[in-house]
Amino acid sequence: MRHPDRYFDADPAVRGVARALYQQTAALPLVCPHGHVDPEILASGRPFPDPAALLVIPDHYLLRMLYSQGVPLEDLGVPRLDGKPVETNPRKIWQRLADNFFLFRGTPSDCWLRDELAGVFGIEEQLNGRTAMDIYDRISEQLARPEFRPRALFERFNIEVLCTTDAATDTLEHHRAILDSGWRGRVLPTFRPDACVAILSPAWRGEIERLGSLAGRDITGFGDFIAALENRRTFFKSMGATATDHAVVEPYTAELSPEEARRVFARALRGEATEADAHAFTAHMLMEFARMSAEDGLVMQLHPGSWRNHDPWVFATFGPDKGCDIPVATEYTRNLRALLNKFGRCPGFRLVLFTLDESTYSRELAPLAGHYPALRLGPPWWFHDSIQGMVRFRERVTETAGIYNTAGFNDDTRAFLSIPARHDLSRRVDASFLAGLVARHIIELEEAGEMAVDLACRLARETYNLGK
Amino acid sequence: MRHPDRYFDADPAVRGVARALYQQTAALPLVCPHGHVDPEILASGRPFPDPAALLVIPDHYLLRMLYSQGVPLEDLGVPRLDGKPVETNPRKIWQRLADNFFLFRGTPSDCWLRDELAGVFGIEEQLNGRTAMDIYDRISEQLARPEFRPRALFERFNIEVLCTTDAATDTLEHHRAILDSGWRGRVLPTFRPDACVAILSPAWRGEIERLGSLAGRDITGFGDFIAALENRRTFFKSMGATATDHAVVEPYTAELSPEEARRVFARALRGEATEADAHAFTAHMLMEFARMSAEDGLVMQLHPGSWRNHDPWVFATFGPDKGCDIPVATEYTRNLRALLNKFGRCPGFRLVLFTLDESTYSRELAPLAGHYPALRLGPPWWFHDSIQGMVRFRERVTETAGIYNTAGFNDDTRAFLSIPARHDLSRRVDASFLAGLVARHIIELEEAGEMAVDLACRLARETYNLGK
Amino acid sequence: MRHPDRYFDADPAVRGVARALYQQTAALPLVCPHGHVDPEILASGRPFPDPAALLVIPDHYLLRMLYSQGVPLEDLGVPRLDGKPVETNPRKIWQRLADNFFLFRGTPSDCWLRDELAGVFGIEEQLNGRTAMDIYDRISEQLARPEFRPRALFERFNIEVLCTTDAATDTLEHHRAILDSGWRGRVLPTFRPDACVAILSPAWRGEIERLGSLAGRDITGFGDFIAALENRRTFFKSMGATATDHAVVEPYTAELSPEEARRVFARALRGEATEADAHAFTAHMLMEFARMSAEDGLVMQLHPGSWRNHDPWVFATFGPDKGCDIPVATEYTRNLRALLNKFGRCPGFRLVLFTLDESTYSRELAPLAGHYPALRLGPPWWFHDSIQGMVRFRERVTETAGIYNTAGFNDDTRAFLSIPARHDLSRRVDASFLAGLVARHIIELEEAGEMAVDLACRLARETYNLGK
Repeated sequence: MRHPDRYFDADPAVRGVARALYQQTAALPLVCPHGHVDPEILASGRPFPDPAALLVIPDHYLLRMLYSQGVPLEDLGVPRLDGKPVETNPRKIWQRLADNFFLFRGTPSDCWLRDELAGVFGIEEQLNGRTAMDIYDRISEQLARPEFRPRALFERFNIEVLCTTDAATDTLEHHRAILDSGWRGRVLPTFRPDACVAILSPAWRGEIERLGSLAGRDITGFGDFIAALENRRTFFKSMGATATDHAVVEPYTAELSPEEARRVFARALRGEATEADAHAFTAHMLMEFARMSAEDGLVMQLHPGSWRNHDPWVFATFGPDKGCDIPVATEYTRNLRALLNKFGRCPGFRLVLFTLDESTYSRELAPLAGHYPALRLGPPWWFHDSIQGMVRFRERVTETAGIYNTAGFNDDTRAFLSIPARHDLSRRVDASFLAGLVARHIIELEEAGEMAVDLACRLARETYNLGK
Repeated sequence: MRHPDRYFDADPAVRGVARALYQQTAALPLVCPHGHVDPEILASGRPFPDPAALLVIPDHYLLRMLYSQGVPLEDLGVPRLDGKPVETNPRKIWQRLADNFFLFRGTPSDCWLRDELAGVFGIEEQLNGRTAMDIYDRISEQLARPEFRPRALFERFNIEVLCTTDAATDTLEHHRAILDSGWRGRVLPTFRPDACVAILSPAWRGEIERLGSLAGRDITGFGDFIAALENRRTFFKSMGATATDHAVVEPYTAELSPEEARRVFARALRGEATEADAHAFTAHMLMEFARMSAEDGLVMQLHPGSWRNHDPWVFATFGPDKGCDIPVATEYTRNLRALLNKFGRCPGFRLVLFTLDESTYSRELAPLAGHYPALRLGPPWWFHDSIQGMVRFRERVTETAGIYNTAGFNDDTRAFLSIPARHDLSRRVDASFLAGLVARHIIELEEAGEMAVDLACRLARETYNLGK
Repeated sequence: MRHPDRYFDADPAVRGVARALYQQTAALPLVCPHGHVDPEILASGRPFPDPAALLVIPDHYLLRMLYSQGVPLEDLGVPRLDGKPVETNPRKIWQRLADNFFLFRGTPSDCWLRDELAGVFGIEEQLNGRTAMDIYDRISEQLARPEFRPRALFERFNIEVLCTTDAATDTLEHHRAILDSGWRGRVLPTFRPDACVAILSPAWRGEIERLGSLAGRDITGFGDFIAALENRRTFFKSMGATATDHAVVEPYTAELSPEEARRVFARALRGEATEADAHAFTAHMLMEFARMSAEDGLVMQLHPGSWRNHDPWVFATFGPDKGCDIPVATEYTRNLRALLNKFGRCPGFRLVLFTLDESTYSRELAPLAGHYPALRLGPPWWFHDSIQGMVRFRERVTETAGIYNTAGFNDDTRAFLSIPARHDLSRRVDASFLAGLVARHIIELEEAGEMAVDLACRLARETYNLGK
């Protein structure tokens, strides 16, 4: 059995308090305001596929580590864009993972997968080369049962609400199907217009055409573009969305004059936009999206600082999201000044800010969040969504911004089955962090209990307006 | 009663040693080489005002957190520059703080205020909406007593020396009044000439005129300017000053030729200075101030990396120091090279360096302080003057620079009543840090005892030449 | 006696496991893939000189700290380049160190020296002013014995292999002498061509002439230069080298066209190279060295981010390596992209990357190492080769890259006698780190045992192809 005290501080005084705090949050519903689960699985309700297709092939955390130690992505069943053959036997793929699972020692992937096998499938054995096939069989057998279908698991997991991430030009057909099905599970879309803003991307023109077509208007200028985006936001809201999401390399914000914006957009439409245009346009569009959020109340999420597809060979061979996005140093104080000055105290506007650059926690993000009313800090993101990553976040942010300028937890996962494990790990780490404050007499036990519940779900619910 | 082991590591072995070390420092006098207490309160010796005016309205740590969670600064009694009405009922302001005091859980403001209420006023109840008015009454009542007058508290706090921070053009009348009063409390000025260097500020011309008038010479060129500054330093020294203080966004140092310096200053006098002039002039003036310090022995303090008044609306509405200064990434290795190369081994010159960018502790500051004889590192500053902030500082600095290249503690506060709480917290955290070294057999208990005393007051006294 | 639990976490549960793990690694052989021991001492086998010449004068960690607190380097016996007199009495130098040894409290220098005195010389007394001369005598007396000669200590230390660092133009005569002597100690050279790349250095022309002469060809163009370097690499390999080492301020990599490379090199030969040339040439040569490594299998080590000789006075007076190299912020994600994209998945290519900028551990280095197969992270380097420095490295790197994308420990020392102390400290800190994971039930005890051995020597052996 997974140890009941796992992830808690080893000190007995801290551990005792952590256990008590965790008991107050362990059974609370899971509020999932940000993630990447494919809504299709809940729309169709079909059984999950085999263990490899379910747990290995789509998990870029697993893929990147195995690849870094010499396992070809082909051997893990990752489809090549050129259609050349890759491993198709799920048992071989699973065996490959198991043979190399020692690589993950000390990583959150190890924690999540062990907890997931134990919590979802009742499998307590350690995954390794010897146990691989037995574990494979036990997973497969259970996946075939009705109680392991996606909607049944959604209910068993006690998910209160699950937000997906969806292109601005997504038709939201799966969300529609879920709504129409009469099933009570709450699955909400999130508006992510990045592809509409990427004016240098070869795919941009196509995206703009889709946008215009869905919004019912030709996009021949910047005004049409803005109107079409606003139209889609209205649609997303009507489908239950409460938030948007934006990814940029650099969170630079600056307003163009209406005329400049029109000119840049016109150049982009003619395929003549420059790097400088793209830089200015992205900065301006963050201002526009903030304005729209201030008007329509969709919570704005900003995820800067990831250099996407750092390895062009992997990108060209296998496509995006294969584990080769790499963080870059990120500046917030200067870059966000225009946006925060203009919208930072607008009632109804809320910005949730993420980072991959931990040096900004205490230097920029906590000081900013401790001043601007509109700003909340998202939980440790991606590479930092880990035990030590969470501890660093709390230790660097809390003393300046408190916990009430943070947005609570989100799992940010595309791996549906890992959702409970991720929330559980976060609740355990927060319980341990708070217990450390209690043990040092910085806060009282009663305060810690309230804070544990706030961090476990209340802050997420409130930050993203997800109260029922 | 506040827990006697508060802020110590929870591990029993560490805690036991921490307690023993703390007992060696708890009662030592408070050496306060850097802070922002208004000397007027000690010159006049008048009773303190009500709890809100004393503890809330001037405390930008409290104001910023409350503002960040939607409390208007007007409701906290912060005067508007346009004179529009703000809350004037101190009970309402105090109640507002108390209702929202949960926001500060886990922050140093919470620790300081609780310790202050307990230590100064004997109030052990937790501050919240229910207890607010009772606590208000108990504070008010005590403030009216003679033993709560500023000078009485100064003595009760066991303050050995208190340095204030004063514009180069300050007349030091309050320091004079204190000296003339016959009271034995040591309250020393610190020379802060920032306003004289800010050649792009609208207020600069006025400052230069004040400077000339106080120094008894017309400032018509750079030579006059330097001579006037030197004149003021001599005056500050005669009033007991042992240090200067300088704030810059970037600690860039570079010498101009005498001719360039004259030309830039002349352009500034004509109101024609550019951004580039200001950049070069600031860099040159840091070199000049270092030269003056090498000559007159005033310890030079440098506080870089704060973007002042990041939020122009708050600045325009309420003025400076309302909690909207935000740190920026800061570079020391390249920027300080000119200054350290020229003055870093001058006998009699000492530079105390601060940072808001913790990533520089181990990367730049500790390596620099572990080489240049003139350099000492100031304690964790502002947002980092907190339990975890202090731990990070010690952990990142000590292994490279030791403790003897650090400047000991300073409270950097404008909140007179919080001084004992701040020193006490620092002594507790240092005791706990040293106890951790003892428990891991990195240092001996006897060494730790000496180090605790060094950190508590000897290093501050020695660094700032404050020995009697 | 040095405490048997030193450097372990103080928590009893963690400490117990740490002790058990450490017992599995304490007696393992020392694998030393990177360091700066002078091979001459092992070639000649002569007795070591007096304690000051052995332990103080060549140790820039000791020199810098003492200098930073006002001890002139002359008084420590550091020779001046101008030949002016310096202290020559080794007893006085040793006394000076001892009088000031309190400065090192809490630093790794203190840990290393205490462990070294105890472990090598059986001296358990604390070094201070009173004990100085007695300790001096006891060291001197032992150094005179045959069992304290370098080769005897090499064997007693259980050094499996010791790699030195050698200029590309080194004749490797000492390595040759060791091989020819019939002694079984493995002492291997490492190819370090930095001086051949530094086209702006006054010494560059001389270095190129030496390079050509050793490679048996006139270097009249870039092609000759490359061929000569390849020739030397072949020679180094024939002498047992398995690795190269490269130092740059910025790890910028970018390929020049063959024509550009030729032109830059020609300008350099004519003494007309510019700063821009040097920048481009360094970036191109990193690409060339990676290509050579991909071809000849020498492991490429890259040490960026040190601003050498920050203090020009010390450099001019005493020469390099006197403790005034200072780190600068370092960027990897963008800078290494060209190199990693081209060679990052070449079979047989391996890059070991170091940093002095700890903010890059979790932001750039661990994400890069967790993707590119060729990349491994070197252990915490220089200022960070310390207890807390190692903890920070493990805590920031492991969760993203695991331990198997790291290169194990190396001591990086020029102080031969400190080698066992450095490995021992590292093994203790890793045991404590792993014990913390066990105590929190993140990994199993059995896994931790394997990992401890991997970190202690297997990863170093395997990363650098040092298996026998």
